[in-house]
Amino acid sequence: MNRKKIWLYDTTLRDGSQREGISLSLNDKLQIVRKLDEMGIPFIEGGWPGANPKDVQFFWRLKEEPLKQAQIVAFCSTRRPQQRAEDDPMLKAILAANTHWVTIFGKSWDLHVTEGLKTSLDENIAMIKDSISYLKSQGRQIIYDAEHWFDGYKNNPDYALATLRGAIASGAKWLVFCDTNGGTLPHEISQIVAEVVEKLDLDLDDPDGVQLGIHTHNDSGTAVANAIASVLEGATMVQGTINGYGERCGNANLCTLIPNLQLKLGYHCLEPQQLTQLTPNSRLISEIVNLAPDDHAPFVGRSAFAHKGGIHVSAVARNPLTYEHIVPEAIGNERRIVISDQSGLSNVLSKAKNFGIDLDKKDPKCREILQRLKNLEHQGYQFEAAEASFELLMREALGQRKELFEIKGFQVHSDITVAEQTPYTHALATIKLVVGEQELLEVAEGNGPVSALDSALRKALVKFYPEIATFHLTDYKVRILDSTAGTNAKTRVLVESTNGHKRWTTVGVSTNIIDASYQAVVEGLEYGINHVLKQSTVTIEG
Amino acid sequence: MNRKKIWLYDTTLRDGSQREGISLSLNDKLQIVRKLDEMGIPFIEGGWPGANPKDVQFFWRLKEEPLKQAQIVAFCSTRRPQQRAEDDPMLKAILAANTHWVTIFGKSWDLHVTEGLKTSLDENIAMIKDSISYLKSQGRQIIYDAEHWFDGYKNNPDYALATLRGAIASGAKWLVFCDTNGGTLPHEISQIVAEVVEKLDLDLDDPDGVQLGIHTHNDSGTAVANAIASVLEGATMVQGTINGYGERCGNANLCTLIPNLQLKLGYHCLEPQQLTQLTPNSRLISEIVNLAPDDHAPFVGRSAFAHKGGIHVSAVARNPLTYEHIVPEAIGNERRIVISDQSGLSNVLSKAKNFGIDLDKKDPKCREILQRLKNLEHQGYQFEAAEASFELLMREALGQRKELFEIKGFQVHSDITVAEQTPYTHALATIKLVVGEQELLEVAEGNGPVSALDSALRKALVKFYPEIATFHLTDYKVRILDSTAGTNAKTRVLVESTNGHKRWTTVGVSTNIIDASYQAVVEGLEYGINHVLKQSTVTIEG
Repeated sequence: MNRKKIWLYDTTLRDGSQREGISLSLNDKLQIVRKLDEMGIPFIEGGWPGANPKDVQFFWRLKEEPLKQAQIVAFCSTRRPQQRAEDDPMLKAILAANTHWVTIFGKSWDLHVTEGLKTSLDENIAMIKDSISYLKSQGRQIIYDAEHWFDGYKNNPDYALATLRGAIASGAKWLVFCDTNGGTLPHEISQIVAEVVEKLDLDLDDPDGVQLGIHTHNDSGTAVANAIASVLEGATMVQGTINGYGERCGNANLCTLIPNLQLKLGYHCLEPQQLTQLTPNSRLISEIVNLAPDDHAPFVGRSAFAHKGGIHVSAVARNPLTYEHIVPEAIGNERRIVISDQSGLSNVLSKAKNFGIDLDKKDPKCREILQRLKNLEHQGYQFEAAEASFELLMREALGQRKELFEIKGFQVHSDITVAEQTPYTHALATIKLVVGEQELLEVAEGNGPVSALDSALRKALVKFYPEIATFHLTDYKVRILDSTAGTNAKTRVLVESTNGHKRWTTVGVSTNIIDASYQAVVEGLEYGINHVLKQSTVTIEG
Repeated sequence: MNRKKIWLYDTTLRDGSQREGISLSLNDKLQIVRKLDEMGIPFIEGGWPGANPKDVQFFWRLKEEPLKQAQIVAFCSTRRPQQRAEDDPMLKAILAANTHWVTIFGKSWDLHVTEGLKTSLDENIAMIKDSISYLKSQGRQIIYDAEHWFDGYKNNPDYALATLRGAIASGAKWLVFCDTNGGTLPHEISQIVAEVVEKLDLDLDDPDGVQLGIHTHNDSGTAVANAIASVLEGATMVQGTINGYGERCGNANLCTLIPNLQLKLGYHCLEPQQLTQLTPNSRLISEIVNLAPDDHAPFVGRSAFAHKGGIHVSAVARNPLTYEHIVPEAIGNERRIVISDQSGLSNVLSKAKNFGIDLDKKDPKCREILQRLKNLEHQGYQFEAAEASFELLMREALGQRKELFEIKGFQVHSDITVAEQTPYTHALATIKLVVGEQELLEVAEGNGPVSALDSALRKALVKFYPEIATFHLTDYKVRILDSTAGTNAKTRVLVESTNGHKRWTTVGVSTNIIDASYQAVVEGLEYGINHVLKQSTVTIEG
């Protein structure tokens, strides 16, 4: 184990925001940058102020309220062909952003110089040198991103190396190898980085000398492995994004890279305490960019440490490292015992512990819960993804379930009338329920029968439980079980609810989709009212 | 470039189905295995017949209707400790599955033998040898999966090697290194595989000798890179799943591995024509397992070859390889220009040809169909798995769609009454439609609102189209689009119908699930009446 320092460089705010479907407001960017700063990321790329007016404002705001520890980095291209660096409007915008560090990207691939920039190979090298020298003369430190590095080097190694020599000569501190098209494989990366170190005669152990960085894309599914390969050859800066956001197939995922580098390879990226913020920050940032978190993401996904099956579970409890590659707590994630058909008593016990329920293995209730679970799963219920419903089931068996209301019945009416070729759709729900001594009858409309039913239920209950006003549904999933039975098949509905802080999931099953949805919606409300603390931070309950 | 053959081994049906949220019906499994067979995957793991009754049925069905080219493989563990192989019920079930190839997994890690199996290290080796020898004596060929290989080897290399020597001595054809916990990094894989080849003195060039395989999990985000690392050290079998499905963070994604191995490293995995089925099959299988396709997946994702920005786009057009790591058509994907998409015309033409429709590229109808298709897909329709609906759309644009009836409107009513704690559910549908000159009003009950609606529609139409009596729905799938909108989200419904001989699939989209279902059911009836020959054999139309 070495304790060599790796300088993390986050580009979620620039390269990450290129992902289709992400559109960040100024406020989103400010929230994200402060989280990254808190977590201890040393370099954060804020944007390209010359190309994007929103980015100009962003840097302005950070000047007013600086970050705690991170260096905020402005990003731009080299000067335009046949122009003086000091006259280039892009470079002027960079200076106005007033950062200590600037990342300049330039062309490494001869073809992109002649076909893309439509200039000469010599002029491209002059562009790199002039831009770096000028920014250096204005007191900036330079990170040089060598765009299309690996493709350029494969096609014309001598020219590619000449561009790097230009960057070194004009004073760049870091040379970053960018696999812009994402097509390079790890063994090629290892070989090329090693060759470059030799050909440029770099002394990477000299802290005052030039250092190497890596910037990879995931088009071959190997962005993380590519970054690791470079680090093993001496790169000390790793560029990537939170959750691997980025255009096409994304950038190298820092949430995967950081634990690999620190927990497996022994490099120093973050303080151990900061590392435990990785999972919560991954999820928080996915909330900010408004994308569902990937449950199956390495390290930080909800399923990353999920275990099924009885024997397996008791083995994990005895010695976690026999079934887990790292300790989930190190990165702020947790082991999760998946409740399923195959689960045994030890699963039930460990779930009870999670729910804060004191349950003894010898308690006959334990077998009763397991039996209940198996019966329901046989009917098509699925508690793997619906832990809130499972907690309610467990509390019911133990006599701890607090009934808040009793549904007497409901009616849902949906109709479509085609008038002059245009269909008109309408949905209405009425519901009758008892809260305490009071019988209530409520009615609501909706986009469809389920949303009408949900509205009617809330309208009735909010008078008694005002916290319901903060609840809303964040996800609604439908699965037809044994779908070969056609429209007579059973339907399973999963509903995810939130109060803005916590999320919880409930389940319903029926041959009638309205009935299945109703069960899940009702349990979601009950669980929220009884078991969700209002002041908690954002966590995911399952 | 070498043209060395790589033997693909798909375990979507077993390991892939371990992913939380996937639950495959027998029919789902049969559909998937036939697609994989068509695509040319040589080994397909069908399941663990001893552990799962559904898998027994699956192998039975394949005996009745064998695959075209693939070897279907049954999977199981070694015999139990202190038992004769011929008495082990698991091994009996394997023999009953009647496959030519069997994959046996055994323990490589001493700790798992003593702590998990609670038996001696010698007995574990005897279990491996006995199980393989017995199955060999019954005419089976053996693939040996060495579970926890890399962790086992790191902890006790001598013992781990002894387990492999046992497998070789008893006649296993393939030794497969399994990174069961998914914690190993590519450089460790390379090193360990190379060491094992040397220590076991394997001659991998001898086609009659033992061959090596690799089975990786994605817990470190490097499953694909790990598999590639093994292949570069001589492994010739690659195990993985379609779309990387699998427990926790998934298995090695075959949709990423295959193009990397074949298009970049020059190995031979599939025929070029079969490789073009990779993208459509990735998407079709995600429909079958009812998970949204990952738009950002390498190679097969919708965004994998998406380009933004003007200069970029024309540069791609001039020389694609400057901005794309491979040619998307090689794997059946397409370049997509975000904003103004020009692609798809050839798709329309090739579909028309499939449907037996004569359509010329220069016909303006061609662009009209494409435009219509894009508008509908933007609204959430999806025609990849609903070719019957696509054919109706195309025929409509060409003036070839024969309207059989006109729906004037329908009403659906669903109610639940709780009497003495027991809920009573009831669903009723009324429908008004015109056939020819005749206006019809019909009513029916059902298990739920959709089945009531389906019954009412059939009751009305069967008088005019008696062949409807043979139709029934064989599959009904619901997907919530933009599920974060909760119960107000749009719903897409896919309905598969059959007349007992042929099957066809139609699609409907609406914020109201009843409306979406109705659209799909109505198109299913129309397509069946107009376009399905009564005497054809069972095939899947899409």
